[in-house]
Amino acid sequence: MARSPQTFRSSQKIDVRVRHEVTAIDPGARRVQVTHLDSGRTSWEPYDDLLIATGARPIIPKVPGHDADGVLAVHTLESGLRVREALERLKPRHAVVVGGGYVGLEMAEAFLLLGLEVRLIEKAPQVMATLDSDMATLVADALRAKGVTLHLEESLVGFETRDGVLTAVMTDKGTYPAGIALLGLGVRPNTELAAEAGIPLGVRNALRVDRRMATAVDGVWGAGDCAESHHFITGKPFYVALGTVANRHGRVAGTNIAGGQAVMGGVLGTAVTKICSVEVGRTGLQERELQELGWEYVSETIESRTKAGYYPGSGPIHVKLSAERRTGKILGGQIVGETGSAKRIDVVAAAITGGLTAEAVSELDLGYAPPFSPLWDPVIMAARVLSKKIGV
Amino acid sequence: MARSPQTFRSSQKIDVRVRHEVTAIDPGARRVQVTHLDSGRTSWEPYDDLLIATGARPIIPKVPGHDADGVLAVHTLESGLRVREALERLKPRHAVVVGGGYVGLEMAEAFLLLGLEVRLIEKAPQVMATLDSDMATLVADALRAKGVTLHLEESLVGFETRDGVLTAVMTDKGTYPAGIALLGLGVRPNTELAAEAGIPLGVRNALRVDRRMATAVDGVWGAGDCAESHHFITGKPFYVALGTVANRHGRVAGTNIAGGQAVMGGVLGTAVTKICSVEVGRTGLQERELQELGWEYVSETIESRTKAGYYPGSGPIHVKLSAERRTGKILGGQIVGETGSAKRIDVVAAAITGGLTAEAVSELDLGYAPPFSPLWDPVIMAARVLSKKIGV
Repeated sequence: MARSPQTFRSSQKIDVRVRHEVTAIDPGARRVQVTHLDSGRTSWEPYDDLLIATGARPIIPKVPGHDADGVLAVHTLESGLRVREALERLKPRHAVVVGGGYVGLEMAEAFLLLGLEVRLIEKAPQVMATLDSDMATLVADALRAKGVTLHLEESLVGFETRDGVLTAVMTDKGTYPAGIALLGLGVRPNTELAAEAGIPLGVRNALRVDRRMATAVDGVWGAGDCAESHHFITGKPFYVALGTVANRHGRVAGTNIAGGQAVMGGVLGTAVTKICSVEVGRTGLQERELQELGWEYVSETIESRTKAGYYPGSGPIHVKLSAERRTGKILGGQIVGETGSAKRIDVVAAAITGGLTAEAVSELDLGYAPPFSPLWDPVIMAARVLSKKIGV
Repeated sequence: MARSPQTFRSSQKIDVRVRHEVTAIDPGARRVQVTHLDSGRTSWEPYDDLLIATGARPIIPKVPGHDADGVLAVHTLESGLRVREALERLKPRHAVVVGGGYVGLEMAEAFLLLGLEVRLIEKAPQVMATLDSDMATLVADALRAKGVTLHLEESLVGFETRDGVLTAVMTDKGTYPAGIALLGLGVRPNTELAAEAGIPLGVRNALRVDRRMATAVDGVWGAGDCAESHHFITGKPFYVALGTVANRHGRVAGTNIAGGQAVMGGVLGTAVTKICSVEVGRTGLQERELQELGWEYVSETIESRTKAGYYPGSGPIHVKLSAERRTGKILGGQIVGETGSAKRIDVVAAAITGGLTAEAVSELDLGYAPPFSPLWDPVIMAARVLSKKIGV
C-alpha cells in the first residue's frame, strides 16, 4: 500500500512484478510458472526459497443473485472503494449485513453513520463467534440499541434483483428490502495453488507451517492469512486471519529466508473492534474451546465502569475472565463496554503471556485516575471475583 | 465518602466515632487516648489490634503569606469545595500552581478549563519527578502548548497580599500576579502520633511495616498514605501515596487483623494522569532509580500514534521502556501522548509483573483495529527497538 514496485527496486533491490500471476508451483525443480496478465505470456521462474503469501479471500456463497449489483464484500482497498461507489450510485435506504463477525459489525457501524436503516443477518444463535454467548448477548443488545435490526439463527438463501440490481435479501425466515447487501461471512485461505503442488494444508485449509513458517516442502514458506499459526496456550495449530498475526508471520519467514533465525511465538487470537461507542475485546481461549479441550476451568463476569462513576463520559464495561481451575492461570478474557473498554484486553493478553494467575492479576499495580478507571480497574475486579471462586 | 457512621454500625457492626481524635497511643497497655472534639472530654480506649490509617497531608511551606486568603491546597473533599468557593468569591484571572506533580498538573487543567491564565512554578529542572527528564520535557512542552506559563528551577519564596488576600506569588526569580495559588508540593505521612508512641518509621517517615502491614510493635498495624510499601522489583521499602496502593494496604491489614492471612504484594508505582488531551502514564523504576541501584540497564523511546495514522482522532504517543541489560527483563515504562495513551502503561505493568523480557513484550499478541492502535501497538514497537538494542 505504501510502496511502489519502483521503490522496492531502487531502495531494497527487490524485483517486484505486479500483474504477474503464479499459475503453478514445481517444488521438485524449485520453479514457479508465471503468467504475465497483460501479455498473456507464460514463463518458468527459478527460486531458492519460495514464500507463499497469497492471503485469504472473503467467502461468497453461490446463492441466487450473489453477483447482483449492490451485493458486496470488503477485502481490499478496491473493494472498499466499490462499496463507496455503490452507495453513491444506488443511494440505498436499506442496508443488509450478512454475518455478525468483525467485518459485519464494522460495516454495520459505517452504514448506521451514513443514516441507513441497517439489518444484520446471522446464521448462528449469536453474533461474534469468537465471544462466549453471554458476552455476545451484550454485543447484540448494543447493536439493537444503536438501531440495528438483528436476525439471529437465520440463513441466507439468496438475493432478489430487478434488472440485475439488488432489491431484497432472502433468508430461510423472511425477505427484507435491501438497496445494498454486505457479506461478512469470514475468509478462506488462498491455498489452492499450494495444494495442487502437493504442499500440505492444515487447519481450515491454511498452509501447514512449523514455527519457522516453513511448510513441509523444502524451500517453501508460508506467511499471512494463507498460513496457520500456533496457539500460545494449547500449542496446537490455529488459524486466525488478523493483520497483527500476518505481520509477525512475515517478519519470521523473511528473517529465516534471509539466513537468520526466527521463531513465531504463539498467538492468543487477541482482537478488538467497535460498533459506534460499543467496544469489544477478546483474547485467549473461549468457553467452547475449553470445553472441547476438556479442561477444567472457572469463569466470572463483572460489570463495572470505564472511568470513575462520577467522571464525565463514564460508561458500563463488562469483563469476563476464565482461568484453569487447578492452577488459577488465566486462559482467556472478553470485554464488552462503552468507549475505553476494548484495549483493556491487552492487560489480559500480557497476563496470559506472563503465566499470571487470577490472584496475581487481582493484585496488578494498574494505573488509576478518575478520567481513566474506577479505583479498582475492571480487569482487576474480574480477577478478584474469579480468584475468590477458585479459592473456594 | 459513601457510608455514614450509622451505616457502618447497622450493616457491619462497626462503632465509628467521628469528631474523636486519638491524641496518644500506649502500645504497652494496648490503649489509645481519645479526645472528643465537641465536648473536649478525654478518655482511654483499649484495643486488641490497632490500625493506624491516618493518611498524609499536603506539604505547606511556612513562607510569608502562606495562610493568605486565596492560597490553597487540595487533599480532602472539603479542600476541593474551598477551591471552588475561592474561585467564585475572589474571581481570579491569574492562577499560579506551585509544584509540577500529579496534583499540580490536574489543577492546572482545571484552571485552564475555567479560562484562567495559568502559571506553574516548579523548583526542579523538570515537571513530574516520577518521569525521566526526557519524558518530562514532553509533558512540559504539552503544558506550554495548552497555554500554561511554565517556570522551572524557580523556588517559592512567599505570597504578596493586600488586606490578607493573595495578590502575587514570589519566587527566587520573579513576582507573578495571582488571584489564586494552588500548592501541589506533595504529601507528608501523618505519623507524628505513631512516632511519639515509639512505633518505628521508615522511608519518608512513613510507618515501617512488613508485608502483612504489621508495624514493629505488637498489635499495631499501618495502612494507606501513612504507611510504607515494598517495591515489586527491588523488594525494598518504598513510599507511594496513591489510592490504588492505599486500598490494597487496607485489604491486607484488615484481613490479617480479622484473623486471616494476607500478604501485600509489591508495588510498581504505576500512575496515570492527564492535562486536557495530554495523557501521562508511568510504572516501575525510572532511570534515576536504576542509576542509584547501580543496575545496568538499557532504555529506548519511540514515537508512534494512538490509533492508525489515517483514523480520525489519531494523535502522537511516546513510549519509553527500560530493561535490565543482562536479562532483557522490563524494569520500567513511561508514556506521554494524546487521548488514549495513558492506560497503555497497564500492559507494561503486567509485563513487569510477569517477568517478561523486551523481546517477549515485542511479541505480545495485543489487540489491533484502526480505531484503537497502529498495526504495531506503540508498546510493542518500543519493546522491539529496545530488544534489538539489547541483542546487539
